[in-house]
Amino acid sequence: MSKLLVFPGLAQFVVATTGRNMTKAAYTAVACGVAMIVLLTVDPAYEAAHHYVDAVLWGCQAFFLFEWVVRLRHAFGTGRGWAYALSLRGLVDAGAAAAVPLAMMLGLNPKSAWLFGVFWMFKVMPGIPGLRQLRRVLVLESGPLLSVLVIFLLVLFLASVAEYYLERDVQPDGFSSVPSALWWAVATLTTTGYGDVVPITPLGRIVAAVVMICGLGVFGLWTGILATGFAAETRRDNFLKTWESVSKVPFFATLGPAAIADVTHMLRTIDLPARTTIIRKGQVGDCMYFIASGEVEVDLPGKKVTLADGAFFGEMALLGNNLRSANITTTRVSQLLVLDLVDFRLLMARHPDLAETIDAEAKRRVQENN
Amino acid sequence: MSKLLVFPGLAQFVVATTGRNMTKAAYTAVACGVAMIVLLTVDPAYEAAHHYVDAVLWGCQAFFLFEWVVRLRHAFGTGRGWAYALSLRGLVDAGAAAAVPLAMMLGLNPKSAWLFGVFWMFKVMPGIPGLRQLRRVLVLESGPLLSVLVIFLLVLFLASVAEYYLERDVQPDGFSSVPSALWWAVATLTTTGYGDVVPITPLGRIVAAVVMICGLGVFGLWTGILATGFAAETRRDNFLKTWESVSKVPFFATLGPAAIADVTHMLRTIDLPARTTIIRKGQVGDCMYFIASGEVEVDLPGKKVTLADGAFFGEMALLGNNLRSANITTTRVSQLLVLDLVDFRLLMARHPDLAETIDAEAKRRVQENN
Amino acid sequence: MSKLLVFPGLAQFVVATTGRNMTKAAYTAVACGVAMIVLLTVDPAYEAAHHYVDAVLWGCQAFFLFEWVVRLRHAFGTGRGWAYALSLRGLVDAGAAAAVPLAMMLGLNPKSAWLFGVFWMFKVMPGIPGLRQLRRVLVLESGPLLSVLVIFLLVLFLASVAEYYLERDVQPDGFSSVPSALWWAVATLTTTGYGDVVPITPLGRIVAAVVMICGLGVFGLWTGILATGFAAETRRDNFLKTWESVSKVPFFATLGPAAIADVTHMLRTIDLPARTTIIRKGQVGDCMYFIASGEVEVDLPGKKVTLADGAFFGEMALLGNNLRSANITTTRVSQLLVLDLVDFRLLMARHPDLAETIDAEAKRRVQENN
Amino acid sequence: MSKLLVFPGLAQFVVATTGRNMTKAAYTAVACGVAMIVLLTVDPAYEAAHHYVDAVLWGCQAFFLFEWVVRLRHAFGTGRGWAYALSLRGLVDAGAAAAVPLAMMLGLNPKSAWLFGVFWMFKVMPGIPGLRQLRRVLVLESGPLLSVLVIFLLVLFLASVAEYYLERDVQPDGFSSVPSALWWAVATLTTTGYGDVVPITPLGRIVAAVVMICGLGVFGLWTGILATGFAAETRRDNFLKTWESVSKVPFFATLGPAAIADVTHMLRTIDLPARTTIIRKGQVGDCMYFIASGEVEVDLPGKKVTLADGAFFGEMALLGNNLRSANITTTRVSQLLVLDLVDFRLLMARHPDLAETIDAEAKRRVQENN
Repeated sequence: MSKLLVFPGLAQFVVATTGRNMTKAAYTAVACGVAMIVLLTVDPAYEAAHHYVDAVLWGCQAFFLFEWVVRLRHAFGTGRGWAYALSLRGLVDAGAAAAVPLAMMLGLNPKSAWLFGVFWMFKVMPGIPGLRQLRRVLVLESGPLLSVLVIFLLVLFLASVAEYYLERDVQPDGFSSVPSALWWAVATLTTTGYGDVVPITPLGRIVAAVVMICGLGVFGLWTGILATGFAAETRRDNFLKTWESVSKVPFFATLGPAAIADVTHMLRTIDLPARTTIIRKGQVGDCMYFIASGEVEVDLPGKKVTLADGAFFGEMALLGNNLRSANITTTRVSQLLVLDLVDFRLLMARHPDLAETIDAEAKRRVQENN
Repeated sequence: MSKLLVFPGLAQFVVATTGRNMTKAAYTAVACGVAMIVLLTVDPAYEAAHHYVDAVLWGCQAFFLFEWVVRLRHAFGTGRGWAYALSLRGLVDAGAAAAVPLAMMLGLNPKSAWLFGVFWMFKVMPGIPGLRQLRRVLVLESGPLLSVLVIFLLVLFLASVAEYYLERDVQPDGFSSVPSALWWAVATLTTTGYGDVVPITPLGRIVAAVVMICGLGVFGLWTGILATGFAAETRRDNFLKTWESVSKVPFFATLGPAAIADVTHMLRTIDLPARTTIIRKGQVGDCMYFIASGEVEVDLPGKKVTLADGAFFGEMALLGNNLRSANITTTRVSQLLVLDLVDFRLLMARHPDLAETIDAEAKRRVQENN
Repeated sequence: MSKLLVFPGLAQFVVATTGRNMTKAAYTAVACGVAMIVLLTVDPAYEAAHHYVDAVLWGCQAFFLFEWVVRLRHAFGTGRGWAYALSLRGLVDAGAAAAVPLAMMLGLNPKSAWLFGVFWMFKVMPGIPGLRQLRRVLVLESGPLLSVLVIFLLVLFLASVAEYYLERDVQPDGFSSVPSALWWAVATLTTTGYGDVVPITPLGRIVAAVVMICGLGVFGLWTGILATGFAAETRRDNFLKTWESVSKVPFFATLGPAAIADVTHMLRTIDLPARTTIIRKGQVGDCMYFIASGEVEVDLPGKKVTLADGAFFGEMALLGNNLRSANITTTRVSQLLVLDLVDFRLLMARHPDLAETIDAEAKRRVQENN
Repeated sequence: MSKLLVFPGLAQFVVATTGRNMTKAAYTAVACGVAMIVLLTVDPAYEAAHHYVDAVLWGCQAFFLFEWVVRLRHAFGTGRGWAYALSLRGLVDAGAAAAVPLAMMLGLNPKSAWLFGVFWMFKVMPGIPGLRQLRRVLVLESGPLLSVLVIFLLVLFLASVAEYYLERDVQPDGFSSVPSALWWAVATLTTTGYGDVVPITPLGRIVAAVVMICGLGVFGLWTGILATGFAAETRRDNFLKTWESVSKVPFFATLGPAAIADVTHMLRTIDLPARTTIIRKGQVGDCMYFIASGEVEVDLPGKKVTLADGAFFGEMALLGNNLRSANITTTRVSQLLVLDLVDFRLLMARHPDLAETIDAEAKRRVQENN
């Protein structure tokens, strides 16, 4: 019973003390674990340091098991136990916790069993920002992507059967069957070109040349669909993130909703930790900033000025000689909106009232500083 | 005579009972048939299961022959017999029905004859949605694509002759003739790079390096033309499909034609079967829906509300806290128009009257539910 | 003297009778000549048919020499002799005429000398429509392309020296010198990957992995620059070509210049020879046509209607049930402007007066036909 | 002391006489030095010319050392010594000056030590215009690029462990450890495909095929992100550069700020040295020019007309028969704004007052010339 009491206490302690660091700890464990799995397979290295390697691997395994149990407990504690356990994330955690022990129990020798530790890598997936975008692209563009895949398979099978027919007599080893020819075809159509199996008859080579050129086409379509879709998703994400921030800046409040949508396309959101220098005196400036949330400190000669939510800064370099006139640093975690020089000019051209406001503020600041 | 009577009856039965499933059956037959062709060439596998493989192959062959005859009968019955028989589709059906028997009659041994069954794969082509788009791209961009092809051939021949001249003395095997050198050149210019023939003289290698770099250029142009064209076609298809649906939604009726064209660019059409859950309570919502045709059921606490053609739903997550407040399911085959969060905001900004309508409806719904 | 008189007469006869066919004859000669050069190097083929091959080669050579002399005479006759002789085209013609004879005079054996006939291929270059665009892209984007080239060379040399340093001891054959390593590097950085020389030390492989990943980056930049530039040039060319035609169509005369620029972006020009069927009855129609110049014949039941410059047709399928209601054929060389369904709708939405004109004409035509 | 006096004098002399040529001298030294390093490793070449190679290498080394000292002195003289010494440029200069001597002092044999001279190449980096753009792209798109990198690594490790597990028994040489398998995986995922290690088991080949297809996807994403970002940066740079010039041309002064932003997108800036011919009589003209700064001379029959800042020329070919009517040459270093034919037409359509000004000026010029 004491053990039962100790464990929850330990779990709460871990959750409380680590918090957001839990993720960092997991990432470190994944990196160490995978490095050790790699080392494990290099015989001289493993012989030299097998105690160390084994210790780290068991440590990682213990950590992932522990993490999973803690998360499960926490999830069941808040009534969302099964939701977590059966979510993608829960399954990844379960896999990371159980794959290696299960493999060992099933009688694999330890060296092979540890290889299943490569599934630990899936734990970094929720932290990849672009993965959600990629999934949306794959869903939205599934039609065209599927079409290209079918064309890819069509060319693959036609080419394989043709090459098998043309080459099997002169190369009974390389093109012994259609699966062998498929291996050649996939390496050729993706323009990988291993060169382990290569057609040698004239007709076979003409077919191969056509396959290579088709490969360029398939490549081009695939690239185009993914690239266009990914670019659109990135723009969409930026718009959504920026839209929230723009509404917090009073400077833009006078604009109608259509103009706000226009402005949102021009801005870019950046999140900065405390005590980060945003602008360095004497550097070339090519953008200005609006504070969506947080606070910055302007380091003027003889005094320090603090700017808070809704204020803007950095406009003087855009209006004047392009050089920053003071150091500016965040005092706490801040979210800023960045307006690039090009968009600054377009914005000023389209909204003369905003231009006047910025001009007036810039003049007031120059006078104050003198 | 009884046989003659039986066949039309069977054909009518097949057409009637399968209907749209005819296509599914054909796809299954193609997949099974091609898999068997692949297996046929793997000696150990074929020896182990040749009865089974042969049976499936003959079954597929019989099906395609039967399908072709049925389609021909049906086409001639409706007076469009020759039109079908000579259309691309008719020829593909004829090829699938006749290729293998013809090859056998011409004296090929059965194992080789079955290889012609790979032409069965062409039967999936009418079902690839992107193929029509691809054909349009190839037609519309034929000028630039042809130019790149000529440049490709120009580099190919110049490089081949140069390498033949430079390498034939030191590598009489690899570069024995210009066709051999062409084989090297096509593998290099497509960046496949088998490595079976490789220049070894310094000058030959410099020529090869130039060919590789040209290969990147050809690749880039090809990719660019195909990708740009394909993206434009996808947009065009979406616009045409959505335009039809938009006109069915009364919500957009107040807009002028220019605004409707604008709105059409923002929407995306999805077709859903009956009893599909569109929205799940508690999930994050990033789009709203308009019903172009069909019906959905909103699963509110204590009651079920039905929304039909022209209604919209999902707007509350976009206006409020981003979370879906109820499950929503289709009750029959439905066509919906999806409006993404980004475009929702742009639309609301540009058309304040639409914004008011949606706001009013959302408020009414909230009051009703409380 | 008789000879001197005969030649000009022959030349005039050739120019007069061939005219635009001169180009076609030259293309045919290039194709035949290059095919023979390829055949020449295949020993069994050449032995079997050397009389034929030699005859064709000498014929091509004579043709190119003759063509050059004719063109030179013609150019000097019109006072632009040196301009032609020193232009790119003149130099290509001179090269095609003189390369092989010069090589033979310099003592090369005939088989090698004929290889210089590959320069004949340059004669097709003026006929490649995309080449002018490509040259404009290379000029306009020379800055970014040069930057990528310098980055390419930087990575190339750094990687070569690094691999030479790391691999020379274990692979004295493959990485015997920096030029050898450069050969490996260029094959790797372009992702060709012959595999004839491959790093085997762990550090060498890590360097190689970095080079491969840089290769993707270089590839991406190159592709992006070329693709974007080429797409812009194609759009520009289409705009310029279409602009000329739009001004000839009275239908667009009521539009202001800004709207004409807008319309020009929507249209596409096609040039058709006489007696070409543009529209086939019963087919699905997704565009309408304006006649910039030329004449078409509408094949209505019982009568034939002729439409000339400035008329439009094909609008009924776009307004009605999507099916073409009559065959339409050109009666002479015609230039048409194509308006796609998507752009048709956008145009009708933006310009209600044009929509009315088309609607009225369509109704008038329907009444007339009934 | 005389030495101390001589050196500053020499340094000043060098700085004064070379000035901007300093950069050209450095580029030449880099090119020569790297060529010699390459030659140094080719044994026959080095044996034949080692005196010459050594002399050039020592010369380059001396030059870089000298250049660094001069720059350091100059920087300390103007009080920005440490700023320069620790800047990226200063460190590159220091590296170029010190790498080889340091390597020699550390006891490397000279032939190996000279290899470090490859770091001299970094000196060309500040002169690559696209590098700054590339850095901005890498910073702005770091999120998506990092995501793709993580996906790349994920696929890499999963594939390597899978192949190691599947192939190690049949290919103990090629897939002896996970690092060996990683080598295979990186060559496959980048579609390089050396072919030195290739899976041979059926399952291993299926995994490899999936890796190749993933490679296309990774490639596509990478290409798309880099290409889109680079294109945006190029546009941005052009806008900023052109904006400065547009404000100097009185012709555009009547436009409001929104129209100026619009015009800036249409123009392109070119910098020309003195005595450059911009327009040649009789050539086809497809753009007109505005003089932002500098002067050009129009070579009319019988007289020469000079146009200075703010003037425009080349409009007659765009309004008339497309042919240039006179030679136009710069008389001193000039900055011109180029307006392409397409944009000329759009500009004239959108701003009728500008069209009138240009028309009037063109008519005045025609009258004056007659």
